[in-house]
Amino acid sequence: MSRIFACLLMFNLAFASLSPDLSGDEGMYLFNDLPTKTLKERHGFEPTAEWADHLRLSSVRFNSGGSGSFISSDGLVLTNHHVASDTLHKLSSADRNLIDDGFLAATQADELKTPDLELNQLVSIEDVTDRINAEVKENASAEDSAAQRRAAIAKVESESTEKTGLRSDVITLFGGARYHLYRYKKYTDVRLVWAPETAAAFFGGDADNFEYPRYNVDATIMRVYEDGKPAKLEHFLSWNREPLSDGELVFVSGNPGRTQRIFTVAALEFLRDSRIPYVLDYLRRKEILMQQFGLEGKEATRRARDELFGIQNARKAYTGMLAGLQDPATMATKRGREDRILQQISENPELQELASAWKAIEAIQAEKKELLTESASLRSTLFDLAQQITLLAAEDRKPNEERLRGYTDSSRESLLQELLSTAPIYADLEQVKLADELARMIEHRGADDRLVVEILAGLGPRERAAALVSETKLFDVDVRQELIDGGLDRVLVSDDAMIVLARKLEDEYRRIRKRNEEVEERERQAYAKITRATSAIEGTGGYPDATFTLRLAFGTVKGYEEDGKQIDPFTNFAGAYQHAADHEGQADMDLPPSWMKAKDSVDLDTQLNFVCTADIIGGNSGSPVVNRAGELVGLIFDGNIQSLTSDYVYSDKQGRAVSVSGIGILEALRSIYNAKELADQIGK
Amino acid sequence: MSRIFACLLMFNLAFASLSPDLSGDEGMYLFNDLPTKTLKERHGFEPTAEWADHLRLSSVRFNSGGSGSFISSDGLVLTNHHVASDTLHKLSSADRNLIDDGFLAATQADELKTPDLELNQLVSIEDVTDRINAEVKENASAEDSAAQRRAAIAKVESESTEKTGLRSDVITLFGGARYHLYRYKKYTDVRLVWAPETAAAFFGGDADNFEYPRYNVDATIMRVYEDGKPAKLEHFLSWNREPLSDGELVFVSGNPGRTQRIFTVAALEFLRDSRIPYVLDYLRRKEILMQQFGLEGKEATRRARDELFGIQNARKAYTGMLAGLQDPATMATKRGREDRILQQISENPELQELASAWKAIEAIQAEKKELLTESASLRSTLFDLAQQITLLAAEDRKPNEERLRGYTDSSRESLLQELLSTAPIYADLEQVKLADELARMIEHRGADDRLVVEILAGLGPRERAAALVSETKLFDVDVRQELIDGGLDRVLVSDDAMIVLARKLEDEYRRIRKRNEEVEERERQAYAKITRATSAIEGTGGYPDATFTLRLAFGTVKGYEEDGKQIDPFTNFAGAYQHAADHEGQADMDLPPSWMKAKDSVDLDTQLNFVCTADIIGGNSGSPVVNRAGELVGLIFDGNIQSLTSDYVYSDKQGRAVSVSGIGILEALRSIYNAKELADQIGK
Repeated sequence: MSRIFACLLMFNLAFASLSPDLSGDEGMYLFNDLPTKTLKERHGFEPTAEWADHLRLSSVRFNSGGSGSFISSDGLVLTNHHVASDTLHKLSSADRNLIDDGFLAATQADELKTPDLELNQLVSIEDVTDRINAEVKENASAEDSAAQRRAAIAKVESESTEKTGLRSDVITLFGGARYHLYRYKKYTDVRLVWAPETAAAFFGGDADNFEYPRYNVDATIMRVYEDGKPAKLEHFLSWNREPLSDGELVFVSGNPGRTQRIFTVAALEFLRDSRIPYVLDYLRRKEILMQQFGLEGKEATRRARDELFGIQNARKAYTGMLAGLQDPATMATKRGREDRILQQISENPELQELASAWKAIEAIQAEKKELLTESASLRSTLFDLAQQITLLAAEDRKPNEERLRGYTDSSRESLLQELLSTAPIYADLEQVKLADELARMIEHRGADDRLVVEILAGLGPRERAAALVSETKLFDVDVRQELIDGGLDRVLVSDDAMIVLARKLEDEYRRIRKRNEEVEERERQAYAKITRATSAIEGTGGYPDATFTLRLAFGTVKGYEEDGKQIDPFTNFAGAYQHAADHEGQADMDLPPSWMKAKDSVDLDTQLNFVCTADIIGGNSGSPVVNRAGELVGLIFDGNIQSLTSDYVYSDKQGRAVSVSGIGILEALRSIYNAKELADQIGK
Repeated sequence: MSRIFACLLMFNLAFASLSPDLSGDEGMYLFNDLPTKTLKERHGFEPTAEWADHLRLSSVRFNSGGSGSFISSDGLVLTNHHVASDTLHKLSSADRNLIDDGFLAATQADELKTPDLELNQLVSIEDVTDRINAEVKENASAEDSAAQRRAAIAKVESESTEKTGLRSDVITLFGGARYHLYRYKKYTDVRLVWAPETAAAFFGGDADNFEYPRYNVDATIMRVYEDGKPAKLEHFLSWNREPLSDGELVFVSGNPGRTQRIFTVAALEFLRDSRIPYVLDYLRRKEILMQQFGLEGKEATRRARDELFGIQNARKAYTGMLAGLQDPATMATKRGREDRILQQISENPELQELASAWKAIEAIQAEKKELLTESASLRSTLFDLAQQITLLAAEDRKPNEERLRGYTDSSRESLLQELLSTAPIYADLEQVKLADELARMIEHRGADDRLVVEILAGLGPRERAAALVSETKLFDVDVRQELIDGGLDRVLVSDDAMIVLARKLEDEYRRIRKRNEEVEERERQAYAKITRATSAIEGTGGYPDATFTLRLAFGTVKGYEEDGKQIDPFTNFAGAYQHAADHEGQADMDLPPSWMKAKDSVDLDTQLNFVCTADIIGGNSGSPVVNRAGELVGLIFDGNIQSLTSDYVYSDKQGRAVSVSGIGILEALRSIYNAKELADQIGK
């Protein structure tokens, strides 16, 4: 399951969809528009406002790209190991390998402060659609209306931040038909309490990823602090201590990263024929690059591991998505529905003018294809830092409402948290990544391109990358702080090689970004029309496409049939040991020593993983799964391979969300990790 | 080092170059046009006709894509383990893993018959340029002249085969300026005598591939049979038993697969900007595919291993080639020379008209770019068989001179050898490969393409591949034999799914092939002009670009400087053990048990690998290295990473050919592999 934002899935805007012919337990609902009617009719359940508020306030979002939940009154947070692994990697060194060895804080004083995590708790939601739309002039060009909309959003956000002191984000929903203001309480002092070994968390490795049955303790526990002390939490989830039953109703509260269910057939064809093949080429390229880097030795393997994992995960997810789109049946279904809607539109004089939106989306795909390879960035930690510092310096000189997204007053604190991260930066890894990015730039822009010639400075990509890495001081947090504090005057006179490089690419970066925003604005306008048309025909009451904001999904614990075989919804600890024995000698199929040592003391019948029909996607990783009573029963960590098409179409025929069982986590803590004390604090 | 023809490098025609401003020990010389003057002047050595004939007749070519040599009077043949590994793979099964475990025939009766090897000994060379050119009408269209040339070649070949009974190939040299008829004695009963473990042959794995220092026994010994008995050989190489000296003159007799040194700057830009990035995307895709397949388990890993190795090898080679082309200095050098030549042409009235050839090549690159993704093949063993059987049936109905290359009378025997190979075909692997090829076809042709729709038959790529594999009987050699014997009548009524599929794609395959041949004809004509112009200005006396035919290269044993460090030309057995100790626990860095057991009995000072400046490339793998006396001193198995640019430009500054030392092989046989008896036969 994807830490979606860590894995380049960020490319795309998250468009919204109204999904009126909902299928089964489909839906990622807004907390201010819950499917109460459906829940009552299908499952005889009526969530109260208190039930929903408590669940929302017990949920958190990780800025590293995942979800989590508060699980104790004194600040404990539960998420996935694979959501935390970015942090575990940053806390590791050649001598301390938290990824391989796991971690348990012996006392509270031993909890490890994470270098750059920000956790967000959603405090309130306010509809600001009218305020935003009022600022966008009718008949403005797409470029102007994009700027007007950006300014309106920045204004709403900064007013809110000023007034409440809370992080304030305006979220574009339903493809631009709705704008909601989300206010978050931020937690930035986050400490590591417990993580299992990767061998237990990611047992089965790449082979088992997105498969089921599974046997993984893909869990990590952190703690949020305020003023140097464990935060006192009013809202946290209590834990159910009984085994789950087949058919039980469950809820998932988390932050699905992105879905594209609103997409027209033309947009899906673009995904199928251009974008996903392009992204897959990119991912495979980076996968091989990281593998090759790892061949240098054990330390190199460790340094590249987290990135490699993210890439492999995304590659497998995209492969599944593409396979779905390449199945003629998928597209026939999508086309059938679209044809029906267009037919009905053509018969309805009031809606007829909306049909042009489908044409507009089709025309935009050709532009998006051109934009695919347009880039003036060189993906690597050092260049990213240089580029952001350079942009920040220039944006700071502008009025807040004219700034780029991400550089406004309301975003500043979160941005600085990233730019001043104390996470180690490895020169050798940076060099390899930069060399590959320079090579990619030559491939995309051509070797005779003016910028390429200027940037290579007469050297080949490898030699140039080596020079750049040796001539920058951005490894040093103090140097970054000094550049940021010095502002534009300081940045313009910097002779730091990476800053100079970022300055050279700045105009081109801004040009491409502007062009993208202009295209996105037209898309937004077209999808807003499509939403209008669709809801007029199929009715309202749906949910918007995922936007990496808090949503509620629901479903039932339920197995499925695969290749004529019935897959049970549950696995247990006995299955884990059996799976290891069945695959002895294969990569990533060994349980760690802690498990082998504890085999006799573990209750082998305890539920370990389970599947349910809830509608989730990358970004939901780490989401709590709760029962009707709002008690935690599981922890989302994956979707099976059949669920990968849920980016653009949900199906509960075989598609399933995969969770670690809550009682499985407790059993592992008590019987394998000698963490009885920690287990006893959970849910209290 | 690449088994070049196994690794998709076949895409390209092998163009010829005259290389007049030769640098250092540059050159892959024709055996009928040896650089006697250069050798005398530079090295004080004058090869006699006997010396050259003996070396030529002791050299063999492997149809699997490599070189070798006769090394005893009773038929022993030496080549690389990585040239033989295709055969070792075909001889292996779940219960007999020759790749991992190696092999030693206890007695002659135990030697293993290989399923489809053909070894070629070059018996004679005849210049047939005038005969070929006489058949090509002046002012014919490119399409017509391509057909006329093909017919002329088929005629010369079939007359020769009929007259001599020898395999007869007309080779296009110097970019179409010369045509030579090569006659080969074929050996098709080839048996495996000895192979080391891959851990010894490919010690260091992908990490050390194309690197130096190395410590590999990349060697395998086979034996050719005639009439069921070991062939009695007149020509074979005797072995030098003394250590080589630094600076010694050595010769390499082998079959370099392809170089592109004649290429114009426009052609190199096409390689840099389009073709190599495209091929690398392809290779990385297949590398991940094979890795993923291997995750299924040990047997799956074994099945995919040989193909994975070939892909990784090609990927690393192409990465190095691209890096060279992306270095602005490389292209500046090439452009400088081209500008000088064009300048001189413009000043010479007799040559002026030849300048158009450079323009023609430039114009052709755009067409080649279009052709890159044009394909009607689905690379997999089963489809390849079906396609070739289908083509053969149709071609057989035509007069010999109108047939496609590869389907003429003179090629028939070699083609049947391939089609009727008893090598195992694995349904699971075929299915995965076919599914990926179907997906690739959708990506390239679009999902709405008529052929794509027809071929998918309403299914997704995976499901369709599964159906195809389950509905074909081509696994069975008898079924193939029956189809071939039945000819077109039989093929047309076959309901074998793979044959039906090949028939559906046949017209499109022929259309694309014809278009390629037409473009190649125009390229040939242009490069023939360029050759004329260049030799008029820079003089003759060079060598043609590599064509996977026998060539002689020469060089000196010589270290080089890298990152300020002097690399010694020799390594020894002590170094191998040290290298393993230095990289303990890393993938492919363990010496096999046989080596660890023998450590005390091996003479650790014996030379193991060495480097020299000889001009080689993929296809040279397995070439014997001989001294002035014509005695074997080594076995080419790799080029270092700095030599990878030698596809288009030779440099001996750092570029080196890497060999196993002859005495190293003998020491390994005697002290590690308990093969004293075999060692004693060698060179006798």
